[in-house]
Amino acid sequence: MKHILSVSSPDAQGLIAKISSILFKHQLNIEKNDEHVDEEYGQFFMRTCFSGEADFQAILQEIRTQLPTSAEVKISHTARKSIVILCTKENHCLGDLLLRHESGELDVEIKAVVSNHAILEPLSQKFGVPFFHIDAEGISREAHEEKMLQCLKSLNPDLLVLAKYMRILSPHFVEQFQEKMINIHHSFLPAFVGANPYKQAYERGVKIIGATAHFVTQLLDEGPIIFQDIVRIDHTYSWQEMQKAGRNVEKIVLARALDLVLKDRIFIFQNKTIVF
Amino acid sequence: MKHILSVSSPDAQGLIAKISSILFKHQLNIEKNDEHVDEEYGQFFMRTCFSGEADFQAILQEIRTQLPTSAEVKISHTARKSIVILCTKENHCLGDLLLRHESGELDVEIKAVVSNHAILEPLSQKFGVPFFHIDAEGISREAHEEKMLQCLKSLNPDLLVLAKYMRILSPHFVEQFQEKMINIHHSFLPAFVGANPYKQAYERGVKIIGATAHFVTQLLDEGPIIFQDIVRIDHTYSWQEMQKAGRNVEKIVLARALDLVLKDRIFIFQNKTIVF
Amino acid sequence: MKHILSVSSPDAQGLIAKISSILFKHQLNIEKNDEHVDEEYGQFFMRTCFSGEADFQAILQEIRTQLPTSAEVKISHTARKSIVILCTKENHCLGDLLLRHESGELDVEIKAVVSNHAILEPLSQKFGVPFFHIDAEGISREAHEEKMLQCLKSLNPDLLVLAKYMRILSPHFVEQFQEKMINIHHSFLPAFVGANPYKQAYERGVKIIGATAHFVTQLLDEGPIIFQDIVRIDHTYSWQEMQKAGRNVEKIVLARALDLVLKDRIFIFQNKTIVF
Amino acid sequence: MKHILSVSSPDAQGLIAKISSILFKHQLNIEKNDEHVDEEYGQFFMRTCFSGEADFQAILQEIRTQLPTSAEVKISHTARKSIVILCTKENHCLGDLLLRHESGELDVEIKAVVSNHAILEPLSQKFGVPFFHIDAEGISREAHEEKMLQCLKSLNPDLLVLAKYMRILSPHFVEQFQEKMINIHHSFLPAFVGANPYKQAYERGVKIIGATAHFVTQLLDEGPIIFQDIVRIDHTYSWQEMQKAGRNVEKIVLARALDLVLKDRIFIFQNKTIVF
Repeated sequence: MKHILSVSSPDAQGLIAKISSILFKHQLNIEKNDEHVDEEYGQFFMRTCFSGEADFQAILQEIRTQLPTSAEVKISHTARKSIVILCTKENHCLGDLLLRHESGELDVEIKAVVSNHAILEPLSQKFGVPFFHIDAEGISREAHEEKMLQCLKSLNPDLLVLAKYMRILSPHFVEQFQEKMINIHHSFLPAFVGANPYKQAYERGVKIIGATAHFVTQLLDEGPIIFQDIVRIDHTYSWQEMQKAGRNVEKIVLARALDLVLKDRIFIFQNKTIVF
Repeated sequence: MKHILSVSSPDAQGLIAKISSILFKHQLNIEKNDEHVDEEYGQFFMRTCFSGEADFQAILQEIRTQLPTSAEVKISHTARKSIVILCTKENHCLGDLLLRHESGELDVEIKAVVSNHAILEPLSQKFGVPFFHIDAEGISREAHEEKMLQCLKSLNPDLLVLAKYMRILSPHFVEQFQEKMINIHHSFLPAFVGANPYKQAYERGVKIIGATAHFVTQLLDEGPIIFQDIVRIDHTYSWQEMQKAGRNVEKIVLARALDLVLKDRIFIFQNKTIVF
Repeated sequence: MKHILSVSSPDAQGLIAKISSILFKHQLNIEKNDEHVDEEYGQFFMRTCFSGEADFQAILQEIRTQLPTSAEVKISHTARKSIVILCTKENHCLGDLLLRHESGELDVEIKAVVSNHAILEPLSQKFGVPFFHIDAEGISREAHEEKMLQCLKSLNPDLLVLAKYMRILSPHFVEQFQEKMINIHHSFLPAFVGANPYKQAYERGVKIIGATAHFVTQLLDEGPIIFQDIVRIDHTYSWQEMQKAGRNVEKIVLARALDLVLKDRIFIFQNKTIVF
Repeated sequence: MKHILSVSSPDAQGLIAKISSILFKHQLNIEKNDEHVDEEYGQFFMRTCFSGEADFQAILQEIRTQLPTSAEVKISHTARKSIVILCTKENHCLGDLLLRHESGELDVEIKAVVSNHAILEPLSQKFGVPFFHIDAEGISREAHEEKMLQCLKSLNPDLLVLAKYMRILSPHFVEQFQEKMINIHHSFLPAFVGANPYKQAYERGVKIIGATAHFVTQLLDEGPIIFQDIVRIDHTYSWQEMQKAGRNVEKIVLARALDLVLKDRIFIFQNKTIVF
């Protein structure tokens, strides 16, 4: 079994020496190590993937004594995490995740698919994943979010994946899942925030479109960006064709971002990500 | 010698047949033909590259009788066009154009380089191109633009190329060069309009940066986009490193856009470009 | 209903005029028109998408009289085509096509999935597509191909899609499906032909990998290329991780190539493609 | 002043702890640290950028005692390195490097430009760089290389940059500059080794072309790859147009590879590169 030590700390001399010496002393074997210093803020980041067994609580304790008190240190284990997928009507991101799960590439427990529409229920069921349809029609936004929250809290996943979930979430909702909710936005952020970015891109006459996976924060489409990719288009594309081309990017970008998050390869700092 | 017929017209049945039949009747040889219909507005575009000699005024006349009166038709000739390059302090776009010119790849007359700073004068002179330094210090924006206009009008180029000219141009200035002035903007528009886009991109934590070549219109950074390209970056890049990486994209994008414009491969319509 | 006129002919003066005039005379409405001349061989290509009804046989006849006798002319109709998908063990390309089919994006009749392994049978059945397992174990290559041929001929699709079908096809097999069989090769051809290109790419230490969709011809991996795309990798990738990254490219490239072929947007000439 | 510690060693437990502890003990400040383990060969790589002053010979000695005897350890200093640029007739790579040098982006001493043709002499002189024309006409390959070697040895640069030097170098020549000579190959290696790759790419009908910067070894175009990039093309490109599009990629790829090498960011191992 592999373990991942994550350290985010104000920078100081000797951090790598101190931390790696503790791991070495406990005969743990470092397999992959990454560090980064944000020079603007003087913050140090370290991710160490190691194998071997020890009293991890004691090790964490020992490391903390070597670091400033504001440092954040954790050890996570590469056990399977659990996710819940939120979606609305489009099948490409959800289906892509289900296929990756089926082949074993996406090594995660998919606890459920939750949607404000019923249309993707058959797809979810084909792959044996529970589907919860929480209809937003005829009820207030607050009431709908309350139902969603109830459902999601009972499922209690490690991570929420918004796979083209097309409703705006309230700050109240978002704050329940700090750093635990990722979204795929169908544009190359920060271009074209908000509704129908492909239409916006068409109107603007851009020659490249993209997609952005990001953590969800209380500001719409402004959370820390995890991964982005693009595809070239030209004047022959209607906005619907841009949308079609964009779907190819969206699903790949979302899957890749999810992979990074599941492997604890991401630090969030100052509304940006460090990706190891 | 080659000629290029450009037609922009409300769409109607038989336009290709009518136009190409006229060229055929005059024994002109079509070497490359492109058409596009903007379905939203019902506008037809056609670019025909042909060889052979004839009375082009008569042909234009003949074609116009076959088209709605609002159609725009012109025949241009692949003679060398002339340009003036505007720049400020950075040498990468200017130098790149001068090198392409020297190798013969950029087959154009460079009438002059005009700048609000003197720093690029030696570079310009190395390549034997006249350099005009029009200082903006100590005079009003209006006075500076007036001097620029005077200089540019006496040079009278076919096209103005803003190769990192870092001053905002007034609507009054811009309207003197309608569809005759292209700019390289150092971001992937419409993300990060305005000043220091690399700093903005750094703050936002994007994973891809880009550059955009566009026609200059009276709205800052909102003119028709000609070409865009991108480069991947990550959390290890300071904004200065983003700027450095971005310069590679800027010069290539500008050179490619200029090539397209010089070959009359671009139609402007509804603040967008059709690129044949 | 839309129709597509495809012309491949030795170049001559007036071809566009002659052909488009015939369509105009019959009051057919050209919606999209593309031409290309291969200057090396003097071959003219034209694809015209038009609407309207007429006696297409008569029109074809009329067009042929205007062209050299070696010209190839056809009119196809944008009716749904039928395909059979061949695969082996990996689910990503097959699954991707099935999802696109389910959403309506891939507007085609999938007659069946045919495989030399049974492993993808459940996936195929989830989506209601007949699956034929034609086992290659214990029989000769010839015998296996004979069974495959029998199956495919009874299915009689317009197009065969090799979605990671991992067996080499004999020239005898291939010649039954001239220009009707497309394959996804898991490398950026012509780099790394043959078996396990990701391992080859890993050994060579490349920094970019890719995928190539091409028509299958009798020379392994040497058929006309339809579409290619790439993804950046680095020294941290094992060949298995390259394979995983490559799968994302493979499925997108295959789907895009299939889309082009289904829309009759491709001409094959001199073992290359013209893609309109 | 900054220093770079480079370690390539058979992997063992505690290497990071041991090495970083030695630096810490000497109160050196690690600013950037990268490690990689090649799992196939069990080789450990570490690059540490640090500031501070100390007895570096003593530190190297101390580190070596902690490592297997076959380990390679060095400390280099970010002083300006010197290069000699080799070229033939094309100005784009040479000119690009000269421009970067002039702007200060390429912080290096360019000792000279050496060429088998005189055509680029004026360009070199414009930028005040000595130019040596060593003509290959009328003398044997051996005699020409002997003259080249004499010239290069007297210049004695840290690095040779082949900026479109179009002659094949003999193994004898190459072995004088082990790991000290980089080349830009005008294709996406390993596709299209050898002469005129654009012509080869045109014949093959590829949809993407590229360029590859690599260390030169005794096997033609088979040295360790440093950086690659690509550009999309289509059927409308003649091979000369591919060449023109490719030049944009070539110069960017070469400049980027040179930047990596100058910053000691590259390890060569098993004919591949680790790029930190």
